[in-house]
Amino acid sequence: MKRVGVILSGCGFLDGAEIHEAVATLAALENHGLEAVCFAPDVEQMHVVNHLTQDVSNGESRNVLVESARIARGSITALQENSCDDLDAIMLPGGFGAAKNLSDYAVKGSDMVVLPVVEKVLSKAVAAGKPVAAVCIAPVLLASLFGKDAPLLTLGGDSPHAENLENMGARHQVTTHEEIVVDAERKFVTGPCYMLDASVGNILRGADAVVAKLKEFL
Amino acid sequence: MKRVGVILSGCGFLDGAEIHEAVATLAALENHGLEAVCFAPDVEQMHVVNHLTQDVSNGESRNVLVESARIARGSITALQENSCDDLDAIMLPGGFGAAKNLSDYAVKGSDMVVLPVVEKVLSKAVAAGKPVAAVCIAPVLLASLFGKDAPLLTLGGDSPHAENLENMGARHQVTTHEEIVVDAERKFVTGPCYMLDASVGNILRGADAVVAKLKEFL
Repeated sequence: MKRVGVILSGCGFLDGAEIHEAVATLAALENHGLEAVCFAPDVEQMHVVNHLTQDVSNGESRNVLVESARIARGSITALQENSCDDLDAIMLPGGFGAAKNLSDYAVKGSDMVVLPVVEKVLSKAVAAGKPVAAVCIAPVLLASLFGKDAPLLTLGGDSPHAENLENMGARHQVTTHEEIVVDAERKFVTGPCYMLDASVGNILRGADAVVAKLKEFL
Repeated sequence: MKRVGVILSGCGFLDGAEIHEAVATLAALENHGLEAVCFAPDVEQMHVVNHLTQDVSNGESRNVLVESARIARGSITALQENSCDDLDAIMLPGGFGAAKNLSDYAVKGSDMVVLPVVEKVLSKAVAAGKPVAAVCIAPVLLASLFGKDAPLLTLGGDSPHAENLENMGARHQVTTHEEIVVDAERKFVTGPCYMLDASVGNILRGADAVVAKLKEFL
């Protein structure tokens, strides 16, 4: 059974991994006979957001790995530079956690930098010719790291985020619900998920379409 | 479109709602053309559990409604006694939150009591002849409130939990993955979900089977 590293970024779309997308990722991997191996960086979240009021919870702090463990039901380990060396592919669910905890995109836009351990893991995977999937806002990490190669990616519709993506050198392709974009040369598979005003059914089917293509590269 | 009240109990299986089951509930309702209306009680969690270590996080407190909002992406309101008066059915995902925040089953076993606002909502629904679905550990709430009527319920396999359920007057039927138990007289639909050592695919299909039957009662 091929194994796919899933890099989570917390638990909740405003300050961590988008929960529906993360569950959809795990379900899609299972559906296609792939083993999910969950990781998250052992770092503090950028902040904690009250998901009822959307206000920042001042004075509260949470750890990305500890909160991600809620989604993974405890089956998760701290992401290290070599975590994915023995795995066959990598998949990144979205949520603001990708833009706040795995990178600083939420603050810096196209001047973003990727968290060093995440950068190392993704760079090693790409150098080894392994496929990488990313949904929702997570493709900005691929644009930031590999923009010089002009990868073809999607963040859903036209938006300032799509402009930021192109400012980093990537090419943006517009998608609607459940569509995917494939960069066959670099083995990148991306899908819009909650970059669009989607339903949970859209997310489940969208993640499944991404994983179906990811599997073709394995 | 018929509307189903979904009562969440936090965000994370060790101290709140089981995330996969909650997402599966929302997905199943959408799949069957039913509208999910999310609620959670505006109360403090019994405690906070670190899902990486499974230790209680001493000194930390979280609110059930605020954490549930992570799963519901903010589309949730505080459960009140009349919250479900205009709805057509109720569904309870599982996770220890049902046993720690919606009731004190985790501490008291068959001597449990249900949180008053949850008791009132469920009692009104049953009195009005509305169907109620519950998965994982959540059927203990139905046993506690309606055990005198000997409802037929499932908590998966034979276990001390099944014994507790029968001690409260309910009848327990053993189930395996994705099976459901129907009490047609009381319009209760229950399924085992993570009371068994299940996969996320089992959970999605199991919740879908529960909702398919729930819909037949509408």
